[in-house]
Amino acid sequence: MHETSAPTMAIHDWFNGPYPARVRIAIAEKNLQAQVRFVSVNLWKGEHKEPAFLAKNYSGTLPVLELADGTFIAECTAITAYLDNFAGPPTLTGATPLEKATIHMMSRRAELDLLDAISFYFHHATPGLGPKVELYQNPDWGLRQRDRALRAMGYFDDLLKTQDYVAGAAFSMADITVIGAFIFAAIVKLEVPAHFTALHAWHARMLERPSVQAWHAMVEATQAATHR
Amino acid sequence: MHETSAPTMAIHDWFNGPYPARVRIAIAEKNLQAQVRFVSVNLWKGEHKEPAFLAKNYSGTLPVLELADGTFIAECTAITAYLDNFAGPPTLTGATPLEKATIHMMSRRAELDLLDAISFYFHHATPGLGPKVELYQNPDWGLRQRDRALRAMGYFDDLLKTQDYVAGAAFSMADITVIGAFIFAAIVKLEVPAHFTALHAWHARMLERPSVQAWHAMVEATQAATHR
Repeated sequence: MHETSAPTMAIHDWFNGPYPARVRIAIAEKNLQAQVRFVSVNLWKGEHKEPAFLAKNYSGTLPVLELADGTFIAECTAITAYLDNFAGPPTLTGATPLEKATIHMMSRRAELDLLDAISFYFHHATPGLGPKVELYQNPDWGLRQRDRALRAMGYFDDLLKTQDYVAGAAFSMADITVIGAFIFAAIVKLEVPAHFTALHAWHARMLERPSVQAWHAMVEATQAATHR
Repeated sequence: MHETSAPTMAIHDWFNGPYPARVRIAIAEKNLQAQVRFVSVNLWKGEHKEPAFLAKNYSGTLPVLELADGTFIAECTAITAYLDNFAGPPTLTGATPLEKATIHMMSRRAELDLLDAISFYFHHATPGLGPKVELYQNPDWGLRQRDRALRAMGYFDDLLKTQDYVAGAAFSMADITVIGAFIFAAIVKLEVPAHFTALHAWHARMLERPSVQAWHAMVEATQAATHR
């Protein structure tokens, strides 16, 4: 791949969204930056809930991968697996059936009990994306989900006492999902309790990865340039 | 594989659960029945929320696959992908990167907007599994999710006007996820509107599959034997 080759794929997303971050980090881990261009979908204007976007992704979620032939692939895990399957190593979704299943399970667990829970908290128990976008809020549900996320932090802390990465001995998509949860937690000012020392130590190591550093640098640069 | 060989894997589930149904149907599609034994986890007694089960699956959901070495794999999609990857054809999760991504996306969409939505409706806006298990209910959330499911039925109806299966031209895990939604809808008496004729026609074809017929026959036989 050459830096000068034109991107063949597009990612429709919002620059600092926690779910988009997962795919942007995966792209950096796979060294696919030159093959992808980004199309901005403004979360704060609710563009992801408008008919033009819903035609690309019925579920109204970011990000979406657009292939050269116009095919749209939604869902972070589906996009990550696609990029992982067509590009070379390192693998993010596993090589053997057991590795694939373990990574997929742990990523799903990190979504269900941690990242999605924080997202529900944001959209339902805080002002979220504002009254024009948050047309239905259920604060009690949001607070329940915050508690669920806090409990899940304890689960991942326990796990990371005995293994280096979320799905075992190697970095994977499951780590990226938990990184996404840390990004969302920072946005909603949900503190990861300090006594979860193994989880914090893992996160400190994740922050040293070039893919994660590049993401944070991009967000800071974009915010500085646009005062967002 | 011989009928006489002892099962090497266990599925921890409840015989007529809609999520367990997805894996049981996948097992039948892959002709793996002889390799699997079933361990009953009584949903109506809340056994899936007790510490003994949570140690197997932190998320407290059924089903869970137990491998010969004692490894536990949770999440229907992870279990299905595992069975699909280690066994021979036909594939349920796709062969090419694009097929895999499309099937995964459509299965996730069927979960997020249809099956999970019906599950939320059941657990939050109906008596669900009863007061001893449903320790927190949020009826308003449940009703919202019912409406979400009804809207998603329209989406899948539209889709099935122009393609034979949920993820395109071939039967896949994504079809099984929507079959699971039909099973759950029947349990909660949530009617799939009659005017969704393409969706109903697809479902009639699904009911003709030996895997789905075997599941319904097993449920009827079990209920007749135990008066459940």
